[in-house]
Amino acid sequence: MSSFEPCPCVRRVFFLLVALFGVTQLPAVPASSATTVMPLPAVQQFTTGRLAVTPAFSVELQGSADARLRAGLARLLRQVEARTGLTFAHTPAGGFALKSDAAHASLVIDCAAPGSAVPVLGEDESYTLEVTSTEAVLKAPTILGALHGFATLQQLLQADASGWFFPAVRINDQPRFPWRGLMIDVARHWQPLEVIQRNLDGMALVKLNVLHLHLTEDQGFRIESKTFPRLHELGSDGHYFTQDQIRGLIAYAAERGIRVVPEFDIPGHATSWVTAFPELASAPGPYAIERKWGVFDPVLDPTNPRVYALLDGFLGEMAALFPDAYIHIGGDENNGVQWSANAKIQAFIREHNLKDNAGLHAYFNGKVHAILAQHGKKLIGWDEILHPDLTSGSVVHSWRGPTGLAEATRLGFATILSNGYYIDLNYPTADHYLNDPVPADTRLSPEQQKLVLGGEATIWAEWVTPETIDSRIWPRTAAIAERLWSARDVRDVPDMYRRLALVSRRLEEAGLQHASYLDPALRRLAGDQASPAELAALRAFVDLIEPVKHYQRGNQQPEATQFTPLTGLVDCARADSAPGREFAAQVAMLAGPLSPDPQAANSVLQALVAWKFTTVQLAALAARSPRLQEAQPLLTSLATASAVGQEALSVLLSRQAPVAGWLQTQLSRLDEAAKPHAAAELPVIAPLRLLAAAAAEQDKRRTLSPDAWKQHLLDLAPPPVTP
Amino acid sequence: MSSFEPCPCVRRVFFLLVALFGVTQLPAVPASSATTVMPLPAVQQFTTGRLAVTPAFSVELQGSADARLRAGLARLLRQVEARTGLTFAHTPAGGFALKSDAAHASLVIDCAAPGSAVPVLGEDESYTLEVTSTEAVLKAPTILGALHGFATLQQLLQADASGWFFPAVRINDQPRFPWRGLMIDVARHWQPLEVIQRNLDGMALVKLNVLHLHLTEDQGFRIESKTFPRLHELGSDGHYFTQDQIRGLIAYAAERGIRVVPEFDIPGHATSWVTAFPELASAPGPYAIERKWGVFDPVLDPTNPRVYALLDGFLGEMAALFPDAYIHIGGDENNGVQWSANAKIQAFIREHNLKDNAGLHAYFNGKVHAILAQHGKKLIGWDEILHPDLTSGSVVHSWRGPTGLAEATRLGFATILSNGYYIDLNYPTADHYLNDPVPADTRLSPEQQKLVLGGEATIWAEWVTPETIDSRIWPRTAAIAERLWSARDVRDVPDMYRRLALVSRRLEEAGLQHASYLDPALRRLAGDQASPAELAALRAFVDLIEPVKHYQRGNQQPEATQFTPLTGLVDCARADSAPGREFAAQVAMLAGPLSPDPQAANSVLQALVAWKFTTVQLAALAARSPRLQEAQPLLTSLATASAVGQEALSVLLSRQAPVAGWLQTQLSRLDEAAKPHAAAELPVIAPLRLLAAAAAEQDKRRTLSPDAWKQHLLDLAPPPVTP
Repeated sequence: MSSFEPCPCVRRVFFLLVALFGVTQLPAVPASSATTVMPLPAVQQFTTGRLAVTPAFSVELQGSADARLRAGLARLLRQVEARTGLTFAHTPAGGFALKSDAAHASLVIDCAAPGSAVPVLGEDESYTLEVTSTEAVLKAPTILGALHGFATLQQLLQADASGWFFPAVRINDQPRFPWRGLMIDVARHWQPLEVIQRNLDGMALVKLNVLHLHLTEDQGFRIESKTFPRLHELGSDGHYFTQDQIRGLIAYAAERGIRVVPEFDIPGHATSWVTAFPELASAPGPYAIERKWGVFDPVLDPTNPRVYALLDGFLGEMAALFPDAYIHIGGDENNGVQWSANAKIQAFIREHNLKDNAGLHAYFNGKVHAILAQHGKKLIGWDEILHPDLTSGSVVHSWRGPTGLAEATRLGFATILSNGYYIDLNYPTADHYLNDPVPADTRLSPEQQKLVLGGEATIWAEWVTPETIDSRIWPRTAAIAERLWSARDVRDVPDMYRRLALVSRRLEEAGLQHASYLDPALRRLAGDQASPAELAALRAFVDLIEPVKHYQRGNQQPEATQFTPLTGLVDCARADSAPGREFAAQVAMLAGPLSPDPQAANSVLQALVAWKFTTVQLAALAARSPRLQEAQPLLTSLATASAVGQEALSVLLSRQAPVAGWLQTQLSRLDEAAKPHAAAELPVIAPLRLLAAAAAEQDKRRTLSPDAWKQHLLDLAPPPVTP
Repeated sequence: MSSFEPCPCVRRVFFLLVALFGVTQLPAVPASSATTVMPLPAVQQFTTGRLAVTPAFSVELQGSADARLRAGLARLLRQVEARTGLTFAHTPAGGFALKSDAAHASLVIDCAAPGSAVPVLGEDESYTLEVTSTEAVLKAPTILGALHGFATLQQLLQADASGWFFPAVRINDQPRFPWRGLMIDVARHWQPLEVIQRNLDGMALVKLNVLHLHLTEDQGFRIESKTFPRLHELGSDGHYFTQDQIRGLIAYAAERGIRVVPEFDIPGHATSWVTAFPELASAPGPYAIERKWGVFDPVLDPTNPRVYALLDGFLGEMAALFPDAYIHIGGDENNGVQWSANAKIQAFIREHNLKDNAGLHAYFNGKVHAILAQHGKKLIGWDEILHPDLTSGSVVHSWRGPTGLAEATRLGFATILSNGYYIDLNYPTADHYLNDPVPADTRLSPEQQKLVLGGEATIWAEWVTPETIDSRIWPRTAAIAERLWSARDVRDVPDMYRRLALVSRRLEEAGLQHASYLDPALRRLAGDQASPAELAALRAFVDLIEPVKHYQRGNQQPEATQFTPLTGLVDCARADSAPGREFAAQVAMLAGPLSPDPQAANSVLQALVAWKFTTVQLAALAARSPRLQEAQPLLTSLATASAVGQEALSVLLSRQAPVAGWLQTQLSRLDEAAKPHAAAELPVIAPLRLLAAAAAEQDKRRTLSPDAWKQHLLDLAPPPVTP
């Protein structure tokens, strides 16, 4: 399920509209502006006062206070110490000193019960937090709520000239959906333990509660099997989690209130399975670990009883290893090639009245469902498992489009949404943020709505390495976490971006490397001879570009394999360019229905001139650096963008119509500049098109209604075509 | 041995002289300027031509080619791929494809023998490398030489407009000393496995071959003992290496040609030992892990037979765990308080004719030596173990001063030098670099010289955390590695700094975080409200300051404990400020014997103005940030430095004598600005003093000989007094 998603262009255009004409006209100070917390709590009322955080800050534990709670508290206090530079009181034994007298504690934690030792779906995650000038009181029915309260406190902490403090606030919080996940594909590119651990820390900070590990793929089998060691021995290049590591990871996650759901992808995406056991494939072997990207033929043979013997042994072993009630069996993207070409399999389909390959897949899923049930587990699978014969109680994980979720719930299956949360596709945060599992205008019946358990952000790993993965997950996933936790009507995009910048800092402090990976990567890319000024220009340049969206990178770099080093320009580019967004917002103030704002004109001009300066500085570096030669076409595009923008601005400010054909010339130049190169592209082209259109048509600005004016510009200069 | 070092001021002044008057007058293009390699090879002749590195680059293994060699080669090729973006040929099984036909391989590796599976002291580490336009041939008698050759290749790789290449060169290389170490104190602040691993990668890159792990201290017992689990259970706060981890670490090190030598510090520095076993101390317990820094009283009781029973059991266990022939037993800084106060111990001294506490210590060492010998190990200890009764065959690790090494070798003991390599004390790289174990003017006899095995850089961990430790070790330790590997006459400081900047990049690419830790730390320090311009100013500011030298930080922050968060301004400052060095070099061109250079005057003026700008930008941030309030005095000092410098420059360029008393006024102002605050200081004060003196006395510049002029300036304006 990493290779198809229909019509993201719809979302892109929508986002552009929001960026250009929507959100910039919202009230300047939205209701939630005082808060620094993400996800936004269900109820949050700021009151007057602040609770000072000084070295005398103290904590009292009331109610249930087990080791997990104490560990969570210690993590919170250590984070606060690192950020504030304060040292709180410690016991000689090394722990934080706790008060036993509530009257004098700065923070009182009252946790009613420890809850499940390993979190389970649907457990109470609520908490209340009341901060006054004298104390903070955190109450929760289980440890899960207390841990969420700690995450909130971590985000509430702030400073001004008079010192560090928590603002006075009353919070009453619980999640909208019980299943809020991040799926990490550790198979296509191996992601070692420390990557998973730091991402668990990030998840806890934004109250995500499911880590879904995609453990097997055509390109790798990433879990030790003691029953069938050939699986990881032949399928992993030595890169897999030992069972001890998995146990440690589950404990690490549980300490942070997070479930771990494993995925073993069958019957397709199975090259690594049949590398170990070629006789279980639907066509003769031998097989070797797949090194390329795409959808491949190898698929298990559902007519072979030994397949079920293997699955029974292996899934039984995994069922004992992973405590969660669910096991994900993938089930996606079986292309049917091997099944269709195998006469024995086709005969089996006829003999068993299975109708077609889809029927055979459903038959297979039924057998797997029974195996899992025998081992006490429930089945999850991607969209493709949905079939009239799918055993009830299965969970459908929707990835292909909005219809999957509707169809699954219509048939009575619980669902998890990932369509719209494919963070590997490099779409802007706002796209994901506004993608609601159950939007206000949903056509789902109330019964269907109840079957929507939540959603998962998914990071498929064709193009990520341990070095870059954090930058592909964060901070965007924090906005998805808010979508799944906070109320449906929390949709204020500018406020989301404001808080996202803050939570990005907290994520960095928690150990994520989404920001810090960049400068070393740029130094390596620029080479030893780059001057500090050239490095700064390169930084400005990569801040302006974005990786291509959707599955375009595969088209741009068709020769890439698992061995290709991911240390190029595009690996330094990140989705959702902040300067790109800022530029679009400034252009919106120039091209919107109101007459051009001089300050916005000045900002836009400054940006355009800076781009030109960047291209001049980098041209020399790119000419002598073999690694930056791939940047040349994009530098040319940026220079074009700067020139077109300056011309458009000049026309706009002249308040005179340009010569005939001017707009078409500019749009053609921008079409050229919009083309991706080196798998990267310039997000500033789309707003420049609108700027040019606004300049060309400014005489119509006053004659058209605001809505008609917007539509007119979009008709004249629709965003560049992206897949 | 982390709390005393006499007279570093001598070295500081020496460095200043070198920086100001020495090296800037060396030939502009030193002999080694073409090379990018550090340590400088024993023999290295660049020839004409280059070996292109393209995707067709291929490797052939001749001679012995075991798994360790292949793994080392794979690491090299992966590094080259990451840096160049090229993808070399792989086998379907996932390894790099190797050529079997030497005629067509780009790189031929001919390793005669695998050598010891775990490296041993004195093993042949030599290699030859010949690169021509058509191939590179690396020959080595053992794998150690081959691994060193890989490190050389990694550093030789470079690029220009026509692509990536190795320059044609003939290298014939071997180390000057067989013991080239890095000691990491994992006890005072715990350093987890990944810190050690990435530092092993850094060590391999600069051909260091001994990792000395300081495993026990007053503040922590960091190794699992299965025989006496109370030791790590009660002594570590849960932070210790398991024996499995140690075995993995030894294998990781051996793969990189590095020995692992453990240290268990006895009889002093033993608080964590007696926390577990108070009855073995020389005064009644109970004891708890020490949280403060310094020298403490707890010491094992050498008169108690149970001490030797414990040591026999524990050291026997460790002897089986660590394959190296040597075990370090510390032996330093027993303050004698408990021994002197204990009548039974004093009686024992008299009864056994041990004379005094030193005699008792020697008695203890003799017993420990016998225990180690029984377990097949040799004893190493710090300076203090040196005693007429020290058992022959012991190795003395010299830390207290230059006399220790002379005295130990005079008595026939082999020695390792760490005096002058205390990288935790924040001295400039050049200080360490010019500190030769056997300098040209040595008074050691040839026999004594043979007893000098080498040296070790030491990072004591009072003030380092996993976040900052790399920045305290690297890149300075690369220069120590060169001192221990390269010929004695390799002492070209500017060329060292030139190559250090390159090796620093390679170290970063190997995974060290000495550079990348900084920006996240500054973002945390600056707080959420800092603007990008303020962050840039903060970066410029911390690049200009240095942590205080020697043991001054303990004086500046006497309240600090193991719990104090090390996330302040001083933790962002790094030793050997590059802008500080650059400023000193420019001042030297103004204040030297020649008449002032206009370009240098311009550079100095630009720097002075930039400092003022930095202080203005940061004043506002510091005023509203509780964490940066500690920066205020240093900002004031920097503003003073800028003002004095501008005035001095103006006087100098006026070619007129200033008013009477001017120099004393400026020096007083600089005395004030030289004072450390927040445990940091400004390295630019010393050159400013000389600039002021040169300006005040410029009429003497032409009347005095160059040497007399230098001396005159230093007499007038000696560097600020530091300990």
